[in-house]
Amino acid sequence: MSSNDRVIIFDTTLRDGEQSPGASMTGEEKLRIAKALERLKVDVIEAGFAIASPGDFAAVKAVADHIKDSTVCSLARAVDADIERAAEALAGANSGRIHTFIATSPIHMQYKLRMQPDQVVEQAVRAVTKARNLCADVEFSCEDAGRSEIDFLCRIIEAAIDAGARTINIPDTVGYAIPHQYAETIRLLLERIPNADKAVFSVHCHNDLGLAVANSLAAVVAGARQVECTINGLGERAGNAALEEIVMAIKTRQDLLDVHTRIETEHILSASRLVSGITGFPVQPNKAIVGANAFAHESGIHQDGVLKHRETYEIMSAQSVGWNANKMVMGKHSGRAAFRARLEELGIVLPGEGELNAAFARFKELADKKHEIFDEDLQALVSDTLAEDVQEHFKLVTLEVASKTGEVPDAKLVLNVDGNEQAASAQGSGPVDATFKAIESVANSGATLQLYSVNAITKGTDSQGEVTVRLEKGGRIVNGNGADTDIVVASAKAYLNALNLMQVGAKAHPQVAGV
Amino acid sequence: MSSNDRVIIFDTTLRDGEQSPGASMTGEEKLRIAKALERLKVDVIEAGFAIASPGDFAAVKAVADHIKDSTVCSLARAVDADIERAAEALAGANSGRIHTFIATSPIHMQYKLRMQPDQVVEQAVRAVTKARNLCADVEFSCEDAGRSEIDFLCRIIEAAIDAGARTINIPDTVGYAIPHQYAETIRLLLERIPNADKAVFSVHCHNDLGLAVANSLAAVVAGARQVECTINGLGERAGNAALEEIVMAIKTRQDLLDVHTRIETEHILSASRLVSGITGFPVQPNKAIVGANAFAHESGIHQDGVLKHRETYEIMSAQSVGWNANKMVMGKHSGRAAFRARLEELGIVLPGEGELNAAFARFKELADKKHEIFDEDLQALVSDTLAEDVQEHFKLVTLEVASKTGEVPDAKLVLNVDGNEQAASAQGSGPVDATFKAIESVANSGATLQLYSVNAITKGTDSQGEVTVRLEKGGRIVNGNGADTDIVVASAKAYLNALNLMQVGAKAHPQVAGV
Repeated sequence: MSSNDRVIIFDTTLRDGEQSPGASMTGEEKLRIAKALERLKVDVIEAGFAIASPGDFAAVKAVADHIKDSTVCSLARAVDADIERAAEALAGANSGRIHTFIATSPIHMQYKLRMQPDQVVEQAVRAVTKARNLCADVEFSCEDAGRSEIDFLCRIIEAAIDAGARTINIPDTVGYAIPHQYAETIRLLLERIPNADKAVFSVHCHNDLGLAVANSLAAVVAGARQVECTINGLGERAGNAALEEIVMAIKTRQDLLDVHTRIETEHILSASRLVSGITGFPVQPNKAIVGANAFAHESGIHQDGVLKHRETYEIMSAQSVGWNANKMVMGKHSGRAAFRARLEELGIVLPGEGELNAAFARFKELADKKHEIFDEDLQALVSDTLAEDVQEHFKLVTLEVASKTGEVPDAKLVLNVDGNEQAASAQGSGPVDATFKAIESVANSGATLQLYSVNAITKGTDSQGEVTVRLEKGGRIVNGNGADTDIVVASAKAYLNALNLMQVGAKAHPQVAGV
Repeated sequence: MSSNDRVIIFDTTLRDGEQSPGASMTGEEKLRIAKALERLKVDVIEAGFAIASPGDFAAVKAVADHIKDSTVCSLARAVDADIERAAEALAGANSGRIHTFIATSPIHMQYKLRMQPDQVVEQAVRAVTKARNLCADVEFSCEDAGRSEIDFLCRIIEAAIDAGARTINIPDTVGYAIPHQYAETIRLLLERIPNADKAVFSVHCHNDLGLAVANSLAAVVAGARQVECTINGLGERAGNAALEEIVMAIKTRQDLLDVHTRIETEHILSASRLVSGITGFPVQPNKAIVGANAFAHESGIHQDGVLKHRETYEIMSAQSVGWNANKMVMGKHSGRAAFRARLEELGIVLPGEGELNAAFARFKELADKKHEIFDEDLQALVSDTLAEDVQEHFKLVTLEVASKTGEVPDAKLVLNVDGNEQAASAQGSGPVDATFKAIESVANSGATLQLYSVNAITKGTDSQGEVTVRLEKGGRIVNGNGADTDIVVASAKAYLNALNLMQVGAKAHPQVAGV
């Protein structure tokens, strides 16, 4: 560990983040997030688990084909078929990585793999060797490392490095590690594995006890040089280590940590908003770095004190993570060229001219209803355009709702179902309920509504509402999004978007536990 | 530090949490939260800063008068007037504490206090002595301890302990500490201060880098025995250390931390929901312990592994923090006694029979519209009843909205303004916008809408929507809440609630920086 080494930022928003129930993304959405990650200068983007489903394969391939500045990675169990499929998906990558894993804890080896330790080592070596024959860059993970015996970890890691793994990942699969103990494990491994200097040691922490970021940083102090993390800390259960917190702690406390990253921090906030918008997972106001209040100082004294004491640590400013960046306001007189230029500045690249025209038409429609159009409005509008663009089974033609205190609200609507218009009406406990019931009288989806939430996109009463509708059917969960200045229309759009997503071939995630 | 000591849980949701912009609470709301904290068995409840305003004084007094099982604390600068006012507010407490503080960093002493270090020590001693004359339990905080010189900290803390302080708090005011360094500070202080054994050392961490919980736990390992924290990590900027994470890390990893708390963890979730509902600060789904996904295991393997490995650490179950507790469903046939019993089980105690009757009437109304009534519905209904109960300047009488794609939505409503009915109508970019504009045509408040959000309270399309409206005027921020199965009606209620809160005497927080 030389002084001021670089820490490799490995983002797994698209793989481990997407495994979070309710956070599944379409291929197009994954590509949009991958572009935002590339813009952030993330070193490695884990784009998915190629063998999991045709959709996952296509998403990894699309990311590999389009991303040039970050390494693109696919997960693969330590078996031939997984590794071959990963290599196939990564064929077009400028820089690809295969990330293969096997369980190393006694429980997992005995009950899940039903293998002896010797066999597990042998399979790991075979998998790493196979992967290295297909790809120069191979990462090996010890699944459930936290409950593995240290001697066995040393043995399997040494063998994996000998077989050609250049990154060794030690995950805290269950999120129960405590910083000083986790750091001690990393320190022991680095000391005891004779060829440890031939690989980068990596950590992957879960946040069940609220310690994912602290565990990752403690491991970095102990010598780890790759951190696996996600935007907004997205991920199963309480999520993964949050990329924005890892990066800003490293940047702000270089005095103590003495390492750096390649991340261009001023793009953090837009990446956070993109992921939150696509998944429908809100960021709480008191979330570090990217929460709405993270830089809201009610008391002037603090800031004053901070400014007067520059020498102790690097000051973290709101600007440095993208707050108060150019909030350029557009309006009804803004032209197509200005619209396109603004999208580009926001890192939004539409697939083609057709999509640009559709988005611009929506922009004009919105500008008629809403005085000032902010960057957040543009992001919602593009999400909305692309969401509708992907699948068109159900489409809203007209909607009429009336609601009066003391009377039962009703909704009348016309839907376009695969090209045919169908009218429907229903009553409900509110205008949104009536609208959903009217839609279901046509769709008969059999899905249950798991979550309904609305956020105003910008301040002011004429703001657009961005509605997220989460539907579940037979264990499958989809998130539909819709934005409109009319909350009932936005709700209808979100519900229809969710139904359309349900139509897209159900994706079965195999049970990837650990890593 | 004997083995398996108790860590004192000091909750400051009502003081530091409430300082978060947009999180201000009424006296009644503070009391409701205090009761939930008492039920959790929080050791110390910091109820406010008595001298800050008449409202703060009244809130501290109300909490002191009603809470019997927790110590009730008021903040006070190290000046006579503050300490006297704190003692006055705490007069009725079963167990009261005065928490006095002064800045100890060179910058703060020079620029804010304009005092020499000797004068600062002298003033601290005078304040602690004065407080001890009025109250047996005194806590002393070194504001901005993180940037103070260690020799000076040792000197002022030794003097404060000699003067009678029984708790010494070392805050990380700016949230920039890193666990190993913060722990080292605590260790040094405990080693070097000769009378350190006569006081409990306390930590108070902010989450700007996502490390508040880790810093607190590292300090506990180093010997701190009080942790200051808030429910949901509420607090200025990125918030304070989250009580639920501190408590569950201590409980789950007793094997490594070897301490315990008195907290009855099964009440954590209901306390989290209460605070989130009152402040309008949502909890993100991937928040540890209390997020909706915290215990959602998509992959069965993990749980299986966890269950097979009980010996390593205590297993944290969803039940242990109050998930899937008795979600008793009530309906239109539930009677008044069952309703009252259920509220009591939820820890909700209404001020009197009038409020119980009002809440029961609303319950019956809701049961007509909604099939099944869950605990969350009851909590929203009570919040709503009490919110309306406090102030009645503006009240909704009737509301009628119509919205049709292609036409401009309009709203007609009748408001009761101080007893007089006034009709109004307006058009807007959506039904909610039209409603807000109609209300403003009567109220002319001059406030700006800062935040509008809706969450469905339970699953299913007939769920109530809980709307939060945040208004700002002249730097003052209020959160209005409203719940209804009709989202437009809920929005109107929330807007009117916010306007009513604006009418309540503006509260000026003095600039309490650090602690």
